[in-house]
Amino acid sequence: MFTPGGIIAFTTDFQADSFYVAEMKVAAHQIAREAMLVDVTHSIRPQDVKQASWTLLRALEAFPEGTVHVCVVDPGVGTQRRIIAAVIHGQAVIGPDNGLFDVIASQYHVAAAIELNNQVYFGAKRSNSFHGRDIMAPVAAHLVRGIPLESLGDAIHRPIVAPEVKARIFAQRQGDEIHGQFVYADSFGNCVTNIFQDDIPDGWDRQRLKVESGLFSVDGIVSTYGELEPGAAAALIGSSGQLEWAVVQGNAAQKYGFEAGTPVKIVRERA
Amino acid sequence: MFTPGGIIAFTTDFQADSFYVAEMKVAAHQIAREAMLVDVTHSIRPQDVKQASWTLLRALEAFPEGTVHVCVVDPGVGTQRRIIAAVIHGQAVIGPDNGLFDVIASQYHVAAAIELNNQVYFGAKRSNSFHGRDIMAPVAAHLVRGIPLESLGDAIHRPIVAPEVKARIFAQRQGDEIHGQFVYADSFGNCVTNIFQDDIPDGWDRQRLKVESGLFSVDGIVSTYGELEPGAAAALIGSSGQLEWAVVQGNAAQKYGFEAGTPVKIVRERA
Amino acid sequence: MFTPGGIIAFTTDFQADSFYVAEMKVAAHQIAREAMLVDVTHSIRPQDVKQASWTLLRALEAFPEGTVHVCVVDPGVGTQRRIIAAVIHGQAVIGPDNGLFDVIASQYHVAAAIELNNQVYFGAKRSNSFHGRDIMAPVAAHLVRGIPLESLGDAIHRPIVAPEVKARIFAQRQGDEIHGQFVYADSFGNCVTNIFQDDIPDGWDRQRLKVESGLFSVDGIVSTYGELEPGAAAALIGSSGQLEWAVVQGNAAQKYGFEAGTPVKIVRERA
Repeated sequence: MFTPGGIIAFTTDFQADSFYVAEMKVAAHQIAREAMLVDVTHSIRPQDVKQASWTLLRALEAFPEGTVHVCVVDPGVGTQRRIIAAVIHGQAVIGPDNGLFDVIASQYHVAAAIELNNQVYFGAKRSNSFHGRDIMAPVAAHLVRGIPLESLGDAIHRPIVAPEVKARIFAQRQGDEIHGQFVYADSFGNCVTNIFQDDIPDGWDRQRLKVESGLFSVDGIVSTYGELEPGAAAALIGSSGQLEWAVVQGNAAQKYGFEAGTPVKIVRERA
Repeated sequence: MFTPGGIIAFTTDFQADSFYVAEMKVAAHQIAREAMLVDVTHSIRPQDVKQASWTLLRALEAFPEGTVHVCVVDPGVGTQRRIIAAVIHGQAVIGPDNGLFDVIASQYHVAAAIELNNQVYFGAKRSNSFHGRDIMAPVAAHLVRGIPLESLGDAIHRPIVAPEVKARIFAQRQGDEIHGQFVYADSFGNCVTNIFQDDIPDGWDRQRLKVESGLFSVDGIVSTYGELEPGAAAALIGSSGQLEWAVVQGNAAQKYGFEAGTPVKIVRERA
Repeated sequence: MFTPGGIIAFTTDFQADSFYVAEMKVAAHQIAREAMLVDVTHSIRPQDVKQASWTLLRALEAFPEGTVHVCVVDPGVGTQRRIIAAVIHGQAVIGPDNGLFDVIASQYHVAAAIELNNQVYFGAKRSNSFHGRDIMAPVAAHLVRGIPLESLGDAIHRPIVAPEVKARIFAQRQGDEIHGQFVYADSFGNCVTNIFQDDIPDGWDRQRLKVESGLFSVDGIVSTYGELEPGAAAALIGSSGQLEWAVVQGNAAQKYGFEAGTPVKIVRERA
């Protein structure tokens, strides 16, 4: 069902260089000493589940089969929200069931999902405010060591993401337009959208597409920043295969004020 | 006296992602290649020995027996201040003797303390401004490799923290009140105090306690953020067992302006 | 020609805690599982090739022989700029040929240089905007595993840094003055110059040197911060052997506004 590799990858909103990250890593290391512990990022905006859900997609694309991801963006910590482990794209993802799984479970088949309620695999420390350290990291470490996924708790048989949620995650084509939205800005301020390379029909001439958001627009989708002058706005397919709105050697998020959720569309200009 | 595990943990004020951290890690790695090098945090405010001393307590609680901690918050680098290694709570802590040890040596028994003056275990590089790289990291690595603590220098026989300092570290109960102070804000802006869970008598009803600081107050100590609405102030026992003043899904440090040293008290309201 | 140790060191402008760093590390780890992956820093200012070139010098001084450095500050990604691997000071440095090598290739002999054009050693992912992940990290990993340098592409026979560039990198002595410039500020705000300890003649009395920049000046070069009061300006030789302009327990970059390129000089005051 799931065969672990040796990597545990952490994605949280603890912010860069937080000692909470060290506490989680120590909790995992004490159980699985050979595991490689990798930071995806801890700079998810506090409590921003949506940004985290898109970052997880990026992480699943980057990490090898067998990786165990621990994702802690958990505003409901200490309440009744459940914590789950799901096998998606050959990797295991552990996190609170609060929307974090929306993007990856819409993009990929969910091979299995378990509610983490077998306390045997929880850590020794118990708090009401830090389940990343007390539950998720220890469970991830047990999984890396080969404890079968199904031992971790009760199987979940219903879809972990509702169909009506799924329907709103990705961009939609409407005739000569593709309607999407910005989903996060990267560390350069490049604004990444939910429009994927594959959403754009092969027959469309990229040089004759207009990308629009609010009052702003960019003509043509270029294949690399280097084609344009510093300071120019650029629409291009970024390294994750998603359409990005960038400023060459600048910061598009600051310049345009685009936020997660801001609508953006591609319009095909006919000759 | 001290049996090393395989971990060296770093706590500094070099700031996140500083190349000075890499230089320390390389210095340690060249001596102890098998050691696991873990960042606690490097975001201690520059020269803020007090914040570092409380972070060290948190680190000692989180890391396993045998860990070697290197703590570099060292405004007196290059002057005559001594550098010490102390065995506390089963772990070795290396740092300048400038107040960094105040909290941990007040909370726990100091099993041994050595002044690091045996230059045999210093590194090859020598500077007047970076003893973390030139002395502390190399000594930590030798310790991990099994060099006996007592070889590192001269034993210190007097207490490393004076009794009058010790008396001011922790909160004090005065009848129906517990008087403490804020000691740092975490990466979410939650304001952590020096009032511990165990300072609150078992018989006190937590719902009938008032937490006060300056003109602000919170009614009741809740057990988890999730009991309150976003934006509400919350007093709760955090994951370190210390009383925190938080804003649900917000930043209390920014909202209230509490700083390290700001007084805070718990008042028991009688029926 | 080059014998790899087990370390790959990363220097980029991706900014602290960026998930792009994780993507590069995963790309390297999948090829060289035993390699130790170390962050030098990712806080180079976006596209600031000059700051990166000085940071690389610092990294070469700190890391052991056999280290493979991956340096990604790459505003021209996706254009025709070449990517090279050069053996300098016993270490291999991989990065775009855009000025990143200027400082290290001026300071040290370049033992070999290769243009990375053998796609056999590139990664499986291909993008126009992230050659750090798709080319540089995979090539570094192959190098660590023992693939000979010369297999990676075509040898470069001309100097990788032009003599006229070299002539402008370091400070120049003119009689009783040494003329240099600031090259970066460190994480404490200490402003580091291109004037090295060895640039100052042995016979010059350090207490009688004046360091000047614009309207500001400092009298004497001290040997440690601790000799001065908090808040005082200090000129001293930092842990890299370069002259720094610091504020004791303060931030000189903020206080004085010095930037990379700002001229600074040492003036010898005769009795």
